[in-house]
Amino acid sequence: MKENRSKNIRSEFQVTYEYDVFFTKELFSLENILLSEFFQSKKTDKMKKKVLVVIDQGLFNFHNKILESIPQYFQSNVESVQLIEDLIILPGGETSKNDSNGWELVVSAINQYGIDRHSYLMVIGGGAILDMVGYAAAVAHRGIRLIRIPTTVLSQNDSGVGVKNSINYFGKKNFLGTFAPPVAVFNDSSFLVSLEDRDWRSGMAEAVKVSLIKNKVFFEWMESHVSELTHRDLTTMEHLVYECARLHMEHIQNGDPFEFGSSRPLDFGHWFAHKLEYLANFSIRHGEAVAIGMALDSIYSYLSGFLQESELNRILNLLRDLGFQFNHPVLLKNGKENLELALKEFQEHLGGKLTLLMLEGIGFPKEVYTIHLSLLESAYDRLVGWK
Amino acid sequence: MKENRSKNIRSEFQVTYEYDVFFTKELFSLENILLSEFFQSKKTDKMKKKVLVVIDQGLFNFHNKILESIPQYFQSNVESVQLIEDLIILPGGETSKNDSNGWELVVSAINQYGIDRHSYLMVIGGGAILDMVGYAAAVAHRGIRLIRIPTTVLSQNDSGVGVKNSINYFGKKNFLGTFAPPVAVFNDSSFLVSLEDRDWRSGMAEAVKVSLIKNKVFFEWMESHVSELTHRDLTTMEHLVYECARLHMEHIQNGDPFEFGSSRPLDFGHWFAHKLEYLANFSIRHGEAVAIGMALDSIYSYLSGFLQESELNRILNLLRDLGFQFNHPVLLKNGKENLELALKEFQEHLGGKLTLLMLEGIGFPKEVYTIHLSLLESAYDRLVGWK
Repeated sequence: MKENRSKNIRSEFQVTYEYDVFFTKELFSLENILLSEFFQSKKTDKMKKKVLVVIDQGLFNFHNKILESIPQYFQSNVESVQLIEDLIILPGGETSKNDSNGWELVVSAINQYGIDRHSYLMVIGGGAILDMVGYAAAVAHRGIRLIRIPTTVLSQNDSGVGVKNSINYFGKKNFLGTFAPPVAVFNDSSFLVSLEDRDWRSGMAEAVKVSLIKNKVFFEWMESHVSELTHRDLTTMEHLVYECARLHMEHIQNGDPFEFGSSRPLDFGHWFAHKLEYLANFSIRHGEAVAIGMALDSIYSYLSGFLQESELNRILNLLRDLGFQFNHPVLLKNGKENLELALKEFQEHLGGKLTLLMLEGIGFPKEVYTIHLSLLESAYDRLVGWK
Repeated sequence: MKENRSKNIRSEFQVTYEYDVFFTKELFSLENILLSEFFQSKKTDKMKKKVLVVIDQGLFNFHNKILESIPQYFQSNVESVQLIEDLIILPGGETSKNDSNGWELVVSAINQYGIDRHSYLMVIGGGAILDMVGYAAAVAHRGIRLIRIPTTVLSQNDSGVGVKNSINYFGKKNFLGTFAPPVAVFNDSSFLVSLEDRDWRSGMAEAVKVSLIKNKVFFEWMESHVSELTHRDLTTMEHLVYECARLHMEHIQNGDPFEFGSSRPLDFGHWFAHKLEYLANFSIRHGEAVAIGMALDSIYSYLSGFLQESELNRILNLLRDLGFQFNHPVLLKNGKENLELALKEFQEHLGGKLTLLMLEGIGFPKEVYTIHLSLLESAYDRLVGWK
């Protein structure tokens, strides 16, 4: 007789996470006491915790003074923690995630300097190095305290304020990683001034994304501020970053923060963007790829009868007016024949059934579980031919 | 003027975890439908998830039939998931955690077989391989579903039912790892029958530990069942495992599951045990080291005036009657001069201030924040001289 002969004990518990994302200017200026107040607020006993700092090499073209201003800041303003004097400088960009060398170096430094679970790892740079260092922080001693200081539009309004970290492995994007919230994020807009135009622009793709799936008012605000945004008005960009970060964080908090389910609304436009980045060997920026991915999915939504043509045009126009292009060489070369593979890889990464977001309107997403390949190919042809 | 010129957005959310620990016999017997019912209960859509199985090589001395019974079981009883036919066999024991080779192999298999976030990694073996495979499951795709099937007393009543995983790195125990609850644990008592005497005994140390810090009734139950336990009565051992696992899980659930604070009550006796294992080059079992660590801390508690002599004697007698010895060669050789270093390393691993548990009575722990080295050395001398 078949039977279930067993007893069981159920474990059920909740873990509470909280962190602040601060918006400031000149974080390491001696006049700015935000960071010192933060460390003071975290102090629970008389022991001085350590702070190990990792800096994205890419910053040094414009911000090489940071090597002096950080030690000066800690010496003058911060009594409650001890800065590790050896600031670690590592190359950033997607290639920093492509093998485990950078990760290994950070983990070694954590060991070498005796950084414990209640000490801090502070990383300053773009989204890729934030991801890589975040992964090191998440697994060393089963998790040490991570402070992110994102320096690009993309990392300040999107990846840097969220709960994920990762490196690429086996040639697959984000194959290794965890969900591990930081203890704080400091968004310093003075880093944005020196960004290359491509990076300034690229980061806005995630703002368009979050407006498309969450908030039409924000979409319309971008439509009416295209000129300020493309002419690099910093105050306007600060608002874009704040609003995008706010919507992003609101989504994480009210949704499924650690993605136990299959749905991934924040990945709108991303299934194809991930593949494009690989096909272009990362010569395309993440935001540029996301803009193409969103344009493709918006056209698909229109061809499927979900989205009105007038709204499709507004979406494509905003992306174009912000400076995004839909005729990247890799699209013309071999993008189309990789559509099916890209869907398959995205499904595997999601786990479980394919769940994609399409649009019923600006600010109104729609989940779909099947994709008609012929329709997708038509959308693709329209995309590359779009003027 | 110094000022805090910033605004901020706070993110605050809770993540809910739940899992069952099942107690059964002959899990892969065709008559036992527990496992097939489990997979059926987890099914949420029509897709068949995959199950990748990793087995501890150490099992094969006595359980080599498992290579046939697992495929048979899945073929006959399990419709809702797809077994990956290639069962992965890896060496277990602490050495499997000492480098990243085993971990790398498991992560490669996850990639090779396309195991996604909603598929399963099932690991069968002792606590060390559970830790190592658990760490691979926790970081691949940012976390795939882990099923643990612990096969030793120690892993069934302690490590295997908890929320941690790890590997050793830089020669430091558990340097890399995460907090990541499994989706289920299946404790099959039939694996215990074939354990070596040392392993049967060693696992009981954690039961003594949890009774000392949580539950005097359980301590007294062990005192009155020493004979059955040492003569390997399986029903008595099943009760010990169940009760120890229950108290362990209750503690995790009601405490600080991911150890954000500094207190680590479940580590009673462990600060010195960890060091002993290294000093003995893992020729000592974890439980044997924990028994010595608990004896040392109990004597220290007595010498500090916290614990009555009569209760100290009951503790040391129970440990001795269960077969633990306090005269391990490594203790006589260089244990004493490593006491201070062991405290320092434990503090670093804890993070923050030193927080140790001592005893005020059986079932009544007391947190202490400083250790008097001379008193500790006296306790040590008593320990190694104890008859």
